[in-house]
Amino acid sequence: MSSLMPAVVKSEPKAGVELREVPIPVIGATDVLVKVKVASICGTDLHIYNWDPWAQGRVIPPLVPGHEFCGHVAAIGREVTSVKEGDFVSAEMHVACGKCLQCRTGQGHICQHVKIIGIDRNGAFAGYVAIPESNIWKLDPSIPQEYASILDPLGNAVHTALSGDLAAKTVAITGCGPIGLFAIAVARACGAAQVFAIEVNEYRRNIAHQMGADLVLDPATEDVRSIIRDHTGGYGVDVLLELAGHKDAIKLGFDVLRTGGRVSLLGIPSRPVELDLAKDIIFKGATIHGINGRRMFETWYQMTALLKAGKLDLHPVITNRLPLSDFDKGMELLNSGKASKILLYVDGSELK
Amino acid sequence: MSSLMPAVVKSEPKAGVELREVPIPVIGATDVLVKVKVASICGTDLHIYNWDPWAQGRVIPPLVPGHEFCGHVAAIGREVTSVKEGDFVSAEMHVACGKCLQCRTGQGHICQHVKIIGIDRNGAFAGYVAIPESNIWKLDPSIPQEYASILDPLGNAVHTALSGDLAAKTVAITGCGPIGLFAIAVARACGAAQVFAIEVNEYRRNIAHQMGADLVLDPATEDVRSIIRDHTGGYGVDVLLELAGHKDAIKLGFDVLRTGGRVSLLGIPSRPVELDLAKDIIFKGATIHGINGRRMFETWYQMTALLKAGKLDLHPVITNRLPLSDFDKGMELLNSGKASKILLYVDGSELK
Amino acid sequence: MSSLMPAVVKSEPKAGVELREVPIPVIGATDVLVKVKVASICGTDLHIYNWDPWAQGRVIPPLVPGHEFCGHVAAIGREVTSVKEGDFVSAEMHVACGKCLQCRTGQGHICQHVKIIGIDRNGAFAGYVAIPESNIWKLDPSIPQEYASILDPLGNAVHTALSGDLAAKTVAITGCGPIGLFAIAVARACGAAQVFAIEVNEYRRNIAHQMGADLVLDPATEDVRSIIRDHTGGYGVDVLLELAGHKDAIKLGFDVLRTGGRVSLLGIPSRPVELDLAKDIIFKGATIHGINGRRMFETWYQMTALLKAGKLDLHPVITNRLPLSDFDKGMELLNSGKASKILLYVDGSELK
Amino acid sequence: MSSLMPAVVKSEPKAGVELREVPIPVIGATDVLVKVKVASICGTDLHIYNWDPWAQGRVIPPLVPGHEFCGHVAAIGREVTSVKEGDFVSAEMHVACGKCLQCRTGQGHICQHVKIIGIDRNGAFAGYVAIPESNIWKLDPSIPQEYASILDPLGNAVHTALSGDLAAKTVAITGCGPIGLFAIAVARACGAAQVFAIEVNEYRRNIAHQMGADLVLDPATEDVRSIIRDHTGGYGVDVLLELAGHKDAIKLGFDVLRTGGRVSLLGIPSRPVELDLAKDIIFKGATIHGINGRRMFETWYQMTALLKAGKLDLHPVITNRLPLSDFDKGMELLNSGKASKILLYVDGSELK
Repeated sequence: MSSLMPAVVKSEPKAGVELREVPIPVIGATDVLVKVKVASICGTDLHIYNWDPWAQGRVIPPLVPGHEFCGHVAAIGREVTSVKEGDFVSAEMHVACGKCLQCRTGQGHICQHVKIIGIDRNGAFAGYVAIPESNIWKLDPSIPQEYASILDPLGNAVHTALSGDLAAKTVAITGCGPIGLFAIAVARACGAAQVFAIEVNEYRRNIAHQMGADLVLDPATEDVRSIIRDHTGGYGVDVLLELAGHKDAIKLGFDVLRTGGRVSLLGIPSRPVELDLAKDIIFKGATIHGINGRRMFETWYQMTALLKAGKLDLHPVITNRLPLSDFDKGMELLNSGKASKILLYVDGSELK
Repeated sequence: MSSLMPAVVKSEPKAGVELREVPIPVIGATDVLVKVKVASICGTDLHIYNWDPWAQGRVIPPLVPGHEFCGHVAAIGREVTSVKEGDFVSAEMHVACGKCLQCRTGQGHICQHVKIIGIDRNGAFAGYVAIPESNIWKLDPSIPQEYASILDPLGNAVHTALSGDLAAKTVAITGCGPIGLFAIAVARACGAAQVFAIEVNEYRRNIAHQMGADLVLDPATEDVRSIIRDHTGGYGVDVLLELAGHKDAIKLGFDVLRTGGRVSLLGIPSRPVELDLAKDIIFKGATIHGINGRRMFETWYQMTALLKAGKLDLHPVITNRLPLSDFDKGMELLNSGKASKILLYVDGSELK
Repeated sequence: MSSLMPAVVKSEPKAGVELREVPIPVIGATDVLVKVKVASICGTDLHIYNWDPWAQGRVIPPLVPGHEFCGHVAAIGREVTSVKEGDFVSAEMHVACGKCLQCRTGQGHICQHVKIIGIDRNGAFAGYVAIPESNIWKLDPSIPQEYASILDPLGNAVHTALSGDLAAKTVAITGCGPIGLFAIAVARACGAAQVFAIEVNEYRRNIAHQMGADLVLDPATEDVRSIIRDHTGGYGVDVLLELAGHKDAIKLGFDVLRTGGRVSLLGIPSRPVELDLAKDIIFKGATIHGINGRRMFETWYQMTALLKAGKLDLHPVITNRLPLSDFDKGMELLNSGKASKILLYVDGSELK
Repeated sequence: MSSLMPAVVKSEPKAGVELREVPIPVIGATDVLVKVKVASICGTDLHIYNWDPWAQGRVIPPLVPGHEFCGHVAAIGREVTSVKEGDFVSAEMHVACGKCLQCRTGQGHICQHVKIIGIDRNGAFAGYVAIPESNIWKLDPSIPQEYASILDPLGNAVHTALSGDLAAKTVAITGCGPIGLFAIAVARACGAAQVFAIEVNEYRRNIAHQMGADLVLDPATEDVRSIIRDHTGGYGVDVLLELAGHKDAIKLGFDVLRTGGRVSLLGIPSRPVELDLAKDIIFKGATIHGINGRRMFETWYQMTALLKAGKLDLHPVITNRLPLSDFDKGMELLNSGKASKILLYVDGSELK
């Protein structure tokens, strides 16, 4: 194979990216080289593209971003045993150190020295990406290929939803970006009694309807507190999945949580948030889980099981399919609020 | 109202029952008198009818059996506040003492001094039944009335299935009596990835199919161990729900359980069972839950939530509808193995 | 017996109390009349005494405050069976409704309709107090009588400390009022590997030393963050028990919590608090428990077991013993910050 | 260094061992060579020595047994980064595959393809032992060196005891071999309210007393059931730690377990055991945990924390200290029932 590949490159510490040819990564003894088939765009990629304060503090150019993908194994390091050339794979892009307390106690998803492929080193918006064998996830052939590049955000949703009981419970989901939308599907599949989706953006609310939320609410125009109270016997919801990361959503979420309820927080607020600890957590006897990434690899097994069983219809979330060369257009779409999950086909001819 | 009512009475310490007129129960200050609409038959009632060794050791005639029912409140004691005449109700028939360690720590379902209405005192195979207010469960009007008399065994299934995680897990159910059949529905509704129903009786296997089990297996003719191994990547199932209470089913269940799996045992073996603790539990790092009754009242809230959400189709389990006066016929049907859940309509004219 | 008793009475909606004779409470069929022996003073009583904004919004004079006590049964209602005249008892003063979702699912400590004796109705700073049988806690004779009036705040500490694992874990306790001090003892007794007590008040720090904290830290003069980091291999503590209810303590507490740690919040901030959810909870994968009251009655069983086993030395916390008539003096002492737990002997002659 | 070392070798498929010179192990890139200081004897070594049916089915001679040890790093493979020459270390001897479902979900202690050093490949009864870096446990310098070779069985005890709550609970321990004796210490350190040690062997009962069990009971001569009932308010114990692996102990253990209790099973019965599932597990609503090995590496962190905090006095369990050359004598002692934990000093001159 040629030694060059197309790639999206953040070359300079400023907004925008370049699309250019770069060398194909060289892999080590325990690495796997994957020929990327589809890479999908995450909100994080938009932060990097827009070069916002978070990106400026974290990313060091030049960088090939991209951490949601699928593809085929092109080559393996000499010590790799669990996959072989041609296997269809995705990967957990959080590379845990394996040696800290968290890693050594089954909590690698909160490794203190984590490096994220696509943020801290070159990622998947490219012809090829190099992944340590320990992070490779071999895809079950029965999983729809269409979903193979979006397991990373689906995993966020699964981790958030299943960090506590859902079955026979009422669930409020604040924020209907792709992860929130996926969470609707997961909650429904796992026995949630009622799912309330709360979102200010009409485009997203429309998708939330398609995902099967029992009630889709617009906090800008509806009295969400009283509507949810009315639908839950006056108690409020058993479970809050917070995926908006906005202070108003967080406040609303806690307001509609019942006494004794569970909250899983994944949405990242851009700054500290004021909470009424007495009313919202202490007197309520609430339990709060901070959710980061995906559990390695419980979450991956859970996703695989749900997808194999055909329990998740994620198609409404996939709103756009573009060739990799249209990366800028993808960014524009996301900035406009009129797209949800965008898939980039590295080889444009494969677009369906 | 008249002071007499029809009732099924176990009059003598021998097989069989009488159907006769007996006085309507007199209620105390904290009791509720319910006019029974439908009472359904449990396997326990068959033990009492057949007067087997268990029944001889537990039941003291005369007794009106019957612990699965629904009906309307006919009268309330002077301290009762949570229901009023005319309300449609069912009840938890385990009357907990409220004063033992178990009761005072939220474990009333394993109260050390429990009395069961329909076993230890007069039950629901009658025109009326008296129930303490604390045990009454007011029925949500959105629940199908057809299901209102079978919440007791449905609760057994919910308690068994939800005593641990089910979502995204593979589940084997051994024994497809009514509780096992209900458990299929609950497991599917709550996100089980695959449900394997295991049952020797063909009549029951047919219903298991209708309940939506992914695979229905006959251990008498099929190699259940290798079939399940093949369907679970060689690991075995994540969860075993044991509802047969037969030593062969228990052994088979443990054999198909994966290392690190969970077992919930509800089926009652008639005598001690030999277990290979080393292989089946210890080296496997398995977790076993003994399941008794229904959690008061988590299980009732869970059932209500699942039924209101329309997540459970239980109709295939209800195989017969008879007037109360056909009690003997119901017993015959059950003894023949050609019936599952039989509903008795106390007022025969209400048969649908 | 005479029909009058001495009592501390909040007569008017203003600061202060009166000490005067009032009628002995009349009990109902399910109540227990207790002759109070010792009643101890809680910070809540100080709020009521000082008539601060919280008290103005909650308390309706006239009220006899007092919710920590012990005494002997003087009379029982006709339906009471679990205690008899002369029994030595204390009580859970949160009277749960018994009928809401929380009460019916073993969560009576967060009952939505709770009434607190001593806040919402007459309490224990009096010769006698009336208590529902269901709330009475019969005292094991092997428990030191000295501790019998302080089970309510000890229960807060036990509930906070044991809401998750403590054994072999490092624990930071922010706030060394009586509950924080008790929590030191509980953490040590239950296998905490290191206990860090954090408190600005020197008087309280001295008691924290006596309670056996491994390290007692003054955040006003010491670099608590780096000291704890140094003592925990750079990770921070496994568990934070927040009992100060002050925003600086809460912030400090989260700063010293390790990734993947557990927080139990009991201290009540007087207003909303700003939290860095991203850093402190989400990326950390932290778990937060809101803690209210005492679990009914797990916490009471736990306390009893620990006290019977002689695992808790609480004497350093009991700083003053006064006759009930010196109530004002007790308030002065607490307002000065130079007292911890103050016991009031209703019959002054019993002072030891 | 010389290329030979002394070693205990199971050379032939028959009883006994040889002590002879063998080559020092050659290590790979990710391995650590440890110069053994102390190796202690496990009951498993006795099985291998006696060449009983279990050993015949598992062990393939020639083998150097020994899986409890401590020593200093003598050399490291070129990819090893977490330890260096001279470090004082022990090791988890279960080498997990890292690739199965169990390993990838934080359950490496029940890896399906585990290999145990000292059973499946050469172990620590030798001058040197080779260990994969991932299994090395660097010893905290504050841990008593005396305990450094017995972390493996101490870890069994910690895993068993802490697989559920212990604090403020009553605990029965059946079987007082070294693991049972360690479990007494762990239960006491972690807040157990009462510890009942049950053991038929007088020599072991004497040590159980020294370990601080509240009551040491001989089932051959005492009515253990009624004694425990009397000491637990008639309920039975909250927790059973089964470390005997004998059917009578298991039966007795379940008999003394309270309704709603927890059982952790680690003792390995040599054949299937009859259990009264109905009475002992189902109606009791009991929870059973099968316990295998030590959690990697939670258990190691827990042990380290408890030992650093000085919470465990294990000295009474260490009954003999011998040079490696006295291996046969150690076996004799164990076969006699008059020894508990025996330490072998590889360099005899180091005996203290």
